[in-house]
Amino acid sequence: MADRGLPVPEGYAPKDDNSLPAYLAAVPAVAARLGGGPAGWRVREVGDGNLNLVFIVEGPAGGVAVKQALPYVRLVGESWPLPLSRAHFEQMALATQAKHAPGLVPAVLHYDETLALIVMELLHPHIIMRQGMIKAVRYPGFVNTITDFMARTLFHTSDLALPAAEKKAAIAAFCGNTALCKITEDLIFTEPYMVAENNRWTTPQLDNIAKEIREDGDLKVAVSRLKLKFLSEAQALLHGDLHTGSVMVTQDDTRVIDPEFAFYGPMGFDIGAVIANLLINYFSQDGHATPDDPRGAYQTWVLDCVEGCWNDFRGKFVALWQNGAAGDAYPPALFADAAGTEALKAEQEAYMDRLFQDSLSFAAAKMIRRILGLAHNIDLEWIEDADVRAACETRCLKLARDLMVNTANYRSIEGVTAAARAMRNGN
Amino acid sequence: MADRGLPVPEGYAPKDDNSLPAYLAAVPAVAARLGGGPAGWRVREVGDGNLNLVFIVEGPAGGVAVKQALPYVRLVGESWPLPLSRAHFEQMALATQAKHAPGLVPAVLHYDETLALIVMELLHPHIIMRQGMIKAVRYPGFVNTITDFMARTLFHTSDLALPAAEKKAAIAAFCGNTALCKITEDLIFTEPYMVAENNRWTTPQLDNIAKEIREDGDLKVAVSRLKLKFLSEAQALLHGDLHTGSVMVTQDDTRVIDPEFAFYGPMGFDIGAVIANLLINYFSQDGHATPDDPRGAYQTWVLDCVEGCWNDFRGKFVALWQNGAAGDAYPPALFADAAGTEALKAEQEAYMDRLFQDSLSFAAAKMIRRILGLAHNIDLEWIEDADVRAACETRCLKLARDLMVNTANYRSIEGVTAAARAMRNGN
Repeated sequence: MADRGLPVPEGYAPKDDNSLPAYLAAVPAVAARLGGGPAGWRVREVGDGNLNLVFIVEGPAGGVAVKQALPYVRLVGESWPLPLSRAHFEQMALATQAKHAPGLVPAVLHYDETLALIVMELLHPHIIMRQGMIKAVRYPGFVNTITDFMARTLFHTSDLALPAAEKKAAIAAFCGNTALCKITEDLIFTEPYMVAENNRWTTPQLDNIAKEIREDGDLKVAVSRLKLKFLSEAQALLHGDLHTGSVMVTQDDTRVIDPEFAFYGPMGFDIGAVIANLLINYFSQDGHATPDDPRGAYQTWVLDCVEGCWNDFRGKFVALWQNGAAGDAYPPALFADAAGTEALKAEQEAYMDRLFQDSLSFAAAKMIRRILGLAHNIDLEWIEDADVRAACETRCLKLARDLMVNTANYRSIEGVTAAARAMRNGN
Repeated sequence: MADRGLPVPEGYAPKDDNSLPAYLAAVPAVAARLGGGPAGWRVREVGDGNLNLVFIVEGPAGGVAVKQALPYVRLVGESWPLPLSRAHFEQMALATQAKHAPGLVPAVLHYDETLALIVMELLHPHIIMRQGMIKAVRYPGFVNTITDFMARTLFHTSDLALPAAEKKAAIAAFCGNTALCKITEDLIFTEPYMVAENNRWTTPQLDNIAKEIREDGDLKVAVSRLKLKFLSEAQALLHGDLHTGSVMVTQDDTRVIDPEFAFYGPMGFDIGAVIANLLINYFSQDGHATPDDPRGAYQTWVLDCVEGCWNDFRGKFVALWQNGAAGDAYPPALFADAAGTEALKAEQEAYMDRLFQDSLSFAAAKMIRRILGLAHNIDLEWIEDADVRAACETRCLKLARDLMVNTANYRSIEGVTAAARAMRNGN
């Protein structure tokens, strides 16, 4: 298979159920976790898989997850090459996240650069959060954990926490992840706003609104400003794909997985991804509700999560800033006197206000791309009745358009959830 | 000398008048330019020199300039180490600038990575522009050339002109120039706003205003926002030190030299540097004027240059954008229809308005650091009467404070020059 997709290094070959156990048996930390010998290990390839191979391997003592990059996009095939280096960036991001947000990402047991292969602890009995949310399952710990994750990873990789030389070295270390960034640049910030082969939507119901969006000059300027920000503002190390499909949950535990899109970019992109995917789920619930399974109370919970995600994040981020800023930005020596302390406190609020506006704009871009672009969400896709689905999608698109073009009208996250409620109620 | 400052690579040694000719004789392109043999070459060390050794070498056929980095700051000595790698970044920047702004920087004839040594064409009979301006010499071609230089180098290294992968590689290539960036971060954005050993000013005349600035919470927040922008916004390849001491001129020719501070940063930093140094010269003229040598007409010329620098830059940058955008930002495919064309045109003006605000803020930071920080300008330093100098400096500081804190009040560059005139006239 090495002749498919991009050129691969000497020694690279995709693993399969047969070849994987012997390989893992030679890695002491992995063999110890599995227990027994390779003959007794059960291997399943479970990649549901846009991009990679994913194996679950279970032995008598425990299990591991194995993720291996292919030199192309699995979903599309060899016609869409994608570099193996994404595994390199993913394991670097996992290491950084584990350092700043310990226990919130899967532990890495082994990384093989040549094979572009990462062995991680098996998260069990976790499921993908999106799957649970479609079934209206609540996750009481989600808001606390995701806001911990965002506040810690974003703050501690920013100029507020890092000396400039250390941050520049980290920026450079992730600068090579351009192929993954380009997917975002094209699929989120560009194609949904033009005629493009990759686009699809519920047709013919959304044909008109898709056309309106393609002809909306203000919206296209707004999304292009976001794209420029994504291209040029290296604020912090982003997860880069922080939707509810990148979160694994139980009732007691929440973990963030799959940071292969990681790079230094604008913080609002990660925060916006979380908000967007919650709002998409909120609008989708009307397509899943039945008389026996009404979803109104769940929708209230989802909007509570939206509010909590911003408000708790904001509080935690500011607390980190006030208690542990060691970076080169906003040097404490400048703000040590009484007037300075007061001024810095006001600036921290102003900083968070600016980040809030960024986050809403990026959320809007993520909502639109999931309805008009290539990659859709099963929250909406699994609504079988196309008319019902289109109605949910239309509300989502209309809110997103307003969030992106009239961002400054939203002064608080409660303003956003109120607008979502009003949109759903046809006001 | 290799035991002074930072560790140096095997093979590095500073050149001197005696050792340089034999070294240059072994470089065919240099030997050919000088003509004859090394015995007939005249060598002068001319570094007036904050940082480096600079030699002028002249032979029967022509001359060259040789710039060699030392592992410390020449002005201060071995107690302030500074990496030799600055020569590496300088020659990379010179190559990029020569590509996009041909003829506006000195041609590089030879670069020696081990010796941290660059041989360039000798600019003759050019002088440092700042020296000429102190004597009230006009340079009719300056505005046209400096705006060409800024528009071309900033546009062509930005996301408007470069595909994202190419720009990210360029960002990474300059990420290592952190020691030079840190000089800027400390000396421009931090120390003038606090008690710091490096600071100096005309004392006691400026003691009060220096204290006011150290206690000005709004100003310290404003300069810290600029510092964060400098740390995190990789908009384009900056020269990084674009004052009138980095410009060499004759009546017919203008060249930009010394880009050792080059890195990917916010465009307004370069534009602001030019504006700031012109405004400093404007205010300084009252200290140089005598009844026999009034400077009013020259001051008018200087403010005309300020206006031209912004207005011509703006026109040229937008023209490049409208005629040759091949980068990933603002994709032309999104703006091909009539509404899109109109929207993009309006956005180009809005983009330039934002860049104008950035440029004024950075200009203000540069004005303040030259009066209260470590490195001063001879425009002001050469005013012998301390009371007269302090009066000029005070006007400059007051305008700068307003430019940085009330930036949004300045809607055009004519508003800035009007404020400068009013400040000088005591209004």
